[in-house]
Amino acid sequence: MPRPSVKEEIVEAAVKVFHQRGFNATGVQDIADAAGVPKGSFYNHFEGKEALGAEALERYWQGVLKSLDMLKDDGVPPVERLQSYFRKLNDLGRKTKYRPGCMVGNLSTEMSDQSPLIRERLAAILAQWTRAIEDCVKQAQNDGSIRRDIKAKAIAAFMLNSWEGAVLRTKVDRSSLPFEQFEQLVFTSLAARP
Amino acid sequence: MPRPSVKEEIVEAAVKVFHQRGFNATGVQDIADAAGVPKGSFYNHFEGKEALGAEALERYWQGVLKSLDMLKDDGVPPVERLQSYFRKLNDLGRKTKYRPGCMVGNLSTEMSDQSPLIRERLAAILAQWTRAIEDCVKQAQNDGSIRRDIKAKAIAAFMLNSWEGAVLRTKVDRSSLPFEQFEQLVFTSLAARP
Repeated sequence: MPRPSVKEEIVEAAVKVFHQRGFNATGVQDIADAAGVPKGSFYNHFEGKEALGAEALERYWQGVLKSLDMLKDDGVPPVERLQSYFRKLNDLGRKTKYRPGCMVGNLSTEMSDQSPLIRERLAAILAQWTRAIEDCVKQAQNDGSIRRDIKAKAIAAFMLNSWEGAVLRTKVDRSSLPFEQFEQLVFTSLAARP
Repeated sequence: MPRPSVKEEIVEAAVKVFHQRGFNATGVQDIADAAGVPKGSFYNHFEGKEALGAEALERYWQGVLKSLDMLKDDGVPPVERLQSYFRKLNDLGRKTKYRPGCMVGNLSTEMSDQSPLIRERLAAILAQWTRAIEDCVKQAQNDGSIRRDIKAKAIAAFMLNSWEGAVLRTKVDRSSLPFEQFEQLVFTSLAARP
């Protein structure tokens, strides 16, 4: 059964190429080349580049989803989980020299107004991501480590959106300073008042 | 002298088209069509699409620069200037139905890793934008309305980056909620403690 394997190779290659170059700078030929498959076989598996874009985004998201497990680790105080979580994401940015950034953020700015299919997928992903952070923020509000005068949902959305904004700035500045400012500002300013 | 006028029409059209569709989704032909000039005349004025991209970005930035004047209005308390400033930017996002977003943010995620020319221009723009916000944050720290335990420069960069992140989210969600969360969170959490 060669077909599932070829499809898999195309999706894996598409995640890499879309993440590095974005959607519109990438052609079907680039993806076929990166996957090492003939261009013709691409259309046996995907209706077109947009359908593959949505599938590659979903695949990327499955990786992000795994990272969310650390937000559920009951053995660690919730505010420390949140700090470690963003620190881990930021370390990944440093390791990749700030170049690819976050594929979710990249496609959000590039594709939201061009592809309803990709925009809807992005909205579902960002909503799920926000909920995972919100659960942890709620626990931190309950144990008194994060301020309670702002709703957990608003704090969670703000954290995630601000983190995407920090990633965007690291791409331009090729510096980890925006990550450090994000960590300092978010956790200092949202700490419960003593 | 038809030449300066044709060049001007191309730059104006490029700002619109790059802002709406991004850089890579736009061809030279699209810009020539939008400007109503023959494609051949494009190359009389610009070396290529990247050079025009940098010039269109600069033109867009000149518009943003004008909006920064309100941050210098001594007749208004500095923290109110900051609030009005971001509220004004957010109103612009609402008016455009969240679709184009911020051209600076869009090009930051799309082009930073693809065009050194555009990335350097973006870095200079974001630095200048941050400094204008920082001056106002400093004044607000001096009059006791913004907390002083975090440096004005870090607060300013965080504000701008977080705002870009909020814009990114409004593009996906087609909702003004990320703007409202930004305004609430930034100004509540950075307020000086009583």
